[in-house]
Amino acid sequence: MAVTDRVKQILSWYSSENPGTLTNLARLLNHGTLAGTGKLVILPVDQGFEHGPVRSFAPNPEGYDPEYHYQLAIDSGCNAYAAPLGSLEQPAAKFAGQVPLILKVNNSDSLAKLEPCSAITSSVEDALRLGASAIGYTIYPASGQRNTMYQDLREITIEAKRKGLVVVVWSYPRGTGLSKAGETGIDVCCYAATIAAQLGAHIIKVKPPTAHIEQDEARKVYEKFQIPIATLTERIRHVVQATFNGKRVVIFSGGEAKGTDAVLAEIKELAAGGSFGSIMGRNAFQRPRADALKLLSDVMGIYKSA
Amino acid sequence: MAVTDRVKQILSWYSSENPGTLTNLARLLNHGTLAGTGKLVILPVDQGFEHGPVRSFAPNPEGYDPEYHYQLAIDSGCNAYAAPLGSLEQPAAKFAGQVPLILKVNNSDSLAKLEPCSAITSSVEDALRLGASAIGYTIYPASGQRNTMYQDLREITIEAKRKGLVVVVWSYPRGTGLSKAGETGIDVCCYAATIAAQLGAHIIKVKPPTAHIEQDEARKVYEKFQIPIATLTERIRHVVQATFNGKRVVIFSGGEAKGTDAVLAEIKELAAGGSFGSIMGRNAFQRPRADALKLLSDVMGIYKSA
Amino acid sequence: MAVTDRVKQILSWYSSENPGTLTNLARLLNHGTLAGTGKLVILPVDQGFEHGPVRSFAPNPEGYDPEYHYQLAIDSGCNAYAAPLGSLEQPAAKFAGQVPLILKVNNSDSLAKLEPCSAITSSVEDALRLGASAIGYTIYPASGQRNTMYQDLREITIEAKRKGLVVVVWSYPRGTGLSKAGETGIDVCCYAATIAAQLGAHIIKVKPPTAHIEQDEARKVYEKFQIPIATLTERIRHVVQATFNGKRVVIFSGGEAKGTDAVLAEIKELAAGGSFGSIMGRNAFQRPRADALKLLSDVMGIYKSA
Amino acid sequence: MAVTDRVKQILSWYSSENPGTLTNLARLLNHGTLAGTGKLVILPVDQGFEHGPVRSFAPNPEGYDPEYHYQLAIDSGCNAYAAPLGSLEQPAAKFAGQVPLILKVNNSDSLAKLEPCSAITSSVEDALRLGASAIGYTIYPASGQRNTMYQDLREITIEAKRKGLVVVVWSYPRGTGLSKAGETGIDVCCYAATIAAQLGAHIIKVKPPTAHIEQDEARKVYEKFQIPIATLTERIRHVVQATFNGKRVVIFSGGEAKGTDAVLAEIKELAAGGSFGSIMGRNAFQRPRADALKLLSDVMGIYKSA
Amino acid sequence: MAVTDRVKQILSWYSSENPGTLTNLARLLNHGTLAGTGKLVILPVDQGFEHGPVRSFAPNPEGYDPEYHYQLAIDSGCNAYAAPLGSLEQPAAKFAGQVPLILKVNNSDSLAKLEPCSAITSSVEDALRLGASAIGYTIYPASGQRNTMYQDLREITIEAKRKGLVVVVWSYPRGTGLSKAGETGIDVCCYAATIAAQLGAHIIKVKPPTAHIEQDEARKVYEKFQIPIATLTERIRHVVQATFNGKRVVIFSGGEAKGTDAVLAEIKELAAGGSFGSIMGRNAFQRPRADALKLLSDVMGIYKSA
Repeated sequence: MAVTDRVKQILSWYSSENPGTLTNLARLLNHGTLAGTGKLVILPVDQGFEHGPVRSFAPNPEGYDPEYHYQLAIDSGCNAYAAPLGSLEQPAAKFAGQVPLILKVNNSDSLAKLEPCSAITSSVEDALRLGASAIGYTIYPASGQRNTMYQDLREITIEAKRKGLVVVVWSYPRGTGLSKAGETGIDVCCYAATIAAQLGAHIIKVKPPTAHIEQDEARKVYEKFQIPIATLTERIRHVVQATFNGKRVVIFSGGEAKGTDAVLAEIKELAAGGSFGSIMGRNAFQRPRADALKLLSDVMGIYKSA
Repeated sequence: MAVTDRVKQILSWYSSENPGTLTNLARLLNHGTLAGTGKLVILPVDQGFEHGPVRSFAPNPEGYDPEYHYQLAIDSGCNAYAAPLGSLEQPAAKFAGQVPLILKVNNSDSLAKLEPCSAITSSVEDALRLGASAIGYTIYPASGQRNTMYQDLREITIEAKRKGLVVVVWSYPRGTGLSKAGETGIDVCCYAATIAAQLGAHIIKVKPPTAHIEQDEARKVYEKFQIPIATLTERIRHVVQATFNGKRVVIFSGGEAKGTDAVLAEIKELAAGGSFGSIMGRNAFQRPRADALKLLSDVMGIYKSA
Repeated sequence: MAVTDRVKQILSWYSSENPGTLTNLARLLNHGTLAGTGKLVILPVDQGFEHGPVRSFAPNPEGYDPEYHYQLAIDSGCNAYAAPLGSLEQPAAKFAGQVPLILKVNNSDSLAKLEPCSAITSSVEDALRLGASAIGYTIYPASGQRNTMYQDLREITIEAKRKGLVVVVWSYPRGTGLSKAGETGIDVCCYAATIAAQLGAHIIKVKPPTAHIEQDEARKVYEKFQIPIATLTERIRHVVQATFNGKRVVIFSGGEAKGTDAVLAEIKELAAGGSFGSIMGRNAFQRPRADALKLLSDVMGIYKSA
Repeated sequence: MAVTDRVKQILSWYSSENPGTLTNLARLLNHGTLAGTGKLVILPVDQGFEHGPVRSFAPNPEGYDPEYHYQLAIDSGCNAYAAPLGSLEQPAAKFAGQVPLILKVNNSDSLAKLEPCSAITSSVEDALRLGASAIGYTIYPASGQRNTMYQDLREITIEAKRKGLVVVVWSYPRGTGLSKAGETGIDVCCYAATIAAQLGAHIIKVKPPTAHIEQDEARKVYEKFQIPIATLTERIRHVVQATFNGKRVVIFSGGEAKGTDAVLAEIKELAAGGSFGSIMGRNAFQRPRADALKLLSDVMGIYKSA
Repeated sequence: MAVTDRVKQILSWYSSENPGTLTNLARLLNHGTLAGTGKLVILPVDQGFEHGPVRSFAPNPEGYDPEYHYQLAIDSGCNAYAAPLGSLEQPAAKFAGQVPLILKVNNSDSLAKLEPCSAITSSVEDALRLGASAIGYTIYPASGQRNTMYQDLREITIEAKRKGLVVVVWSYPRGTGLSKAGETGIDVCCYAATIAAQLGAHIIKVKPPTAHIEQDEARKVYEKFQIPIATLTERIRHVVQATFNGKRVVIFSGGEAKGTDAVLAEIKELAAGGSFGSIMGRNAFQRPRADALKLLSDVMGIYKSA
């Protein structure tokens, strides 16, 4: 656990937090293949709840077993493993101390098409009980239920910080009045990252943005100041800037499962743009284990040499 | 911290509050260039949450960094710096003790066009933890959600006053059944200031009103009593009167970014009308730092000689 | 504070309440010109919140200042002064102990035309903190939001009674499915008084009823039993009867500002009908101070000789 | 409130605390004549409770009035004023914002000769309500009641730190099994300072130690390592070292009232030994006001040029 | 953090604990030079509180600085660093994430010769706030105050286990009715280890026992069954047996500072007897840093090859 200069620099941005939170943040940054680099690759497996088990695990049925993902996160050298209560808890005793954990404390199922709003499904108390280093929470900016989610997060964040945990926020704009394209528009993505940061998140996860601009008022600003957003690398750099000028760790999801070349090409752009890392679920656990290990290793290699 | 006669007079209007709240009110009135004058210029930076980061900070990209605004508030001699949780917290330890803080405890993003209602995004506990002297809260009178906002404010105000904090209310009428012009109409502005005062606010922030009158019942009164509202100076005087006859500190926002001459001309009218000061966000932080320091200095100069 | 036989009799109707509430009820009945008579004249000033400051105070601009109303209530010999949090609080320390206070704990602004529902704007905790003898609360029977208001009142009443406060309820029928005339119809007025009494109110304020009958089922009964409601005096007697047969203090509002003769003529009928008194806002504070003092003196004179 | 490099250095030793506590620590360090020097002179007036009013105030009867001490602390340029609840509260509203306050939350009277143990006489809630920057607490190491005092302090410290207050601990060994000389013995004084620091105190107040060594085990160490303790300057240097090697602010009391020359001679040694300052009660308030102001000015002059 | 078979075996003895506690136990077992061996060497520095700063740090004055011990624990490759609140907290933010921490939550000073009883000086909440993996607690079996200590430990243990912390108990028999020799007698040492285990401790620290037998009833048993206790190795084996037959981690303190050869000879016997490790304070921090690093390295070497 010798702390590198880069990790010390990152921790210095969080100097208002207590040593407990700094310790858990250091744990995330100091584990696995990327330990000490200031980069993170996290394995998240909440798709069972979010999309249903079959859509999630049929491509690689080993994934129905919660132990599979723990072992994958450990063997691949990920910085952390994130999951909802049930699958994090099931084999937690068996894998105690082998990989930092992020307990996903809210979740949304997709059985009914309702205005998007995640339910709180576990707690800070659970996170401590399971030995997690962080809690994870999803907000849906632009949802008619956004304020409920922001307010619930506020309560949880106060407790998590008091107990020395790290707060990881998935910020996924969707819902009333946002177009499908708008959900990943560059202006919306920057906005989503800022909202999470303002709500007190330590680590922020957003989707890689497209060049689409959703809001007219924003488009004028992009045009007036000629903000470069043509390439993904440029857009990532822009999102990092929009997240407290790089003083909050912002990472990007891999999105839908796709071909290996496409994944690696995207990661290269993320890394070039200054992303602090990736959170890669379906592209990892829906592949056969050997392929997943190879892919994650390649992804980490790209970040390591960034 | 020697307290001037003017500050003592202002504090005397708040004699029902406990010494803790009086102490924090004195802190706000006794800091910076305008210390002791009874006037306030406050730097608020909640636009990242309210309007999104790009619209807010692209004109002066240094503003993406939360530290920039702290330093600007300190170097310009503002009485206080106001911001939402995340950006107030990020460098709070670094700047501890250098400028009074107002923690903005509710916020509203503009990703979706919904009936306006801010979410509670931080707490009195956070304010104490960060060393803030005040909490800030926005209400939207005329919104269908107004009562929710009033009631949440009530809970927060009770706690804030018990803990010796100052309560600053942004009162911005908008929503169902109010015309766009009505949002800044003189009758509505006076009403908005009164609602905030009745809810127990110590410092009230409204927008500079226009001569528009929104409500028919009000128009009859303006006409019958020939209340002078032709000039901005007259309207400010009228708003001050409507705010407990001048016994609550009422300050005015600068609104959208505009030219320096326009800003200063407006400030002169505000000062002539008896405004207790200004809260100036975009007109300050969207300018280059040197220009912002110059502008804020000029604004304070106007209030100082008022 | 020697307690007269009449006051003892009134207190005897509230013998289920704790001695703290009885003490505060005695304070209201034993203060001012009407002390000991069992009659009450109360000065309420919540119009700044309810109708806006300009409509309320432009006729007599001294009224913008919260201190003005305290002084008016004291100098006129009113039994109590009632107001929302902000204006009750502002000079409360200055006037401590000079007049019994009623803290109006809910309020409704009229900026948007929405289904009527007051927001809770202060609390029993505030009432104790400010030294008030009672809390005041408005219900809008017939509103689609009525149950919310009833239920909130229930919570507040439990706490107020436990803490030894008096509960004063403004019962103003309005909203969905009630005609404009129906709001002051005699059947509706009686019904409104009963609802307030059933909700546990100690003092009930209704509007002077007209001879209009709103509900068909009620009309049949009025006709069958030939209940006399032709004159205001008869109707007042009927409302008093409908309010636990006179065992709850019921008082009447003065309504819109009007001429002195009209006011006094109405008061004579109220007094003749057995009203426990009046709550007189706009007719008092919208007059010049000298006129207001004269009018209130005349009103109290009528009640005194009733 | 510009923060000097020295104050920044001191704050850096407290980096585990939240920004609220850092802010209040900065307030203590940035007020009065010694603002920014890293030195503190504090006026404490708890003798009325500790020794009785007559022994405390008869020499200068103006001191019976709580306002006298506030004004003395303000006019002399002390960094802070410390007192028990009653005398801190009595004029707190009048002096709000004029000098940082330390609320002494436990006190011991000397009416009966009992094993020494202070009673908890006020709370963190009081401190916030009165606008204090710190709470003060006395422990009596070596008392048979010491553990009760340590444990009560622990509870209070947790709350104080969470609410952003500074914790000042008076550490005065006395009680069972300690000789009178031992109470100020150098080994005991060092031990007392360490205990306070270990209990989480931010600022520690001890008595200037004598060359007496109380404990045999300690004497062997002093002799073996030839620790220089002959002069007061040497002993102060030793106490500072024993207080986390100078990483906690340790200040010294003046003790019994004595002649001006004796006081100043002692202060010179304290300053030469690296004391962070003095807490001077009886030597200040038992003198006539002019003499007290002169003495405090001279004391501050010594620290300023140290 | 790959977990070895030996660590897995040790964790299997604690399978009734939640995964959080297992995780923190794994953290202790997986850090430093002995990571994965199932052996522990812990640096404890509570002597400043227990014996006073001068007796503790005069031999190596760098030890007055809390940062010194953190750095020593890190650089020497200890499994954990244990200290009371103040010295653990002072540099906790600076060293966050570099070494597992044990917060010593009770402490006893030696200023007065009283019946031994430690005061609770910090809490589980503090442990979480500081990022500690465990709390440490001392009991004094045979003290007249033993039950108070047992009962306080019970409360703290319940909370610690719920929050996923490890409980380390220092079990030091002393007090009324126990001879000085009896404090380290073999029967008493076994008894002390069992009491700690029965109170729910995860890791138990006792002193290396002598061949003295304190209790007559015990002596009969030792003689009857001819239990071998002649050598330290035999006695250690016996203590391990008495601690749930080796199913609780039991470690031994080094006691007073002594010569390097004596220390290493003792450690060899401890290791041969099956000790899980050592907790070595004075023998480490009272030596010059280079010597301490060498000694700790040699000690770890012995355990590694055991």
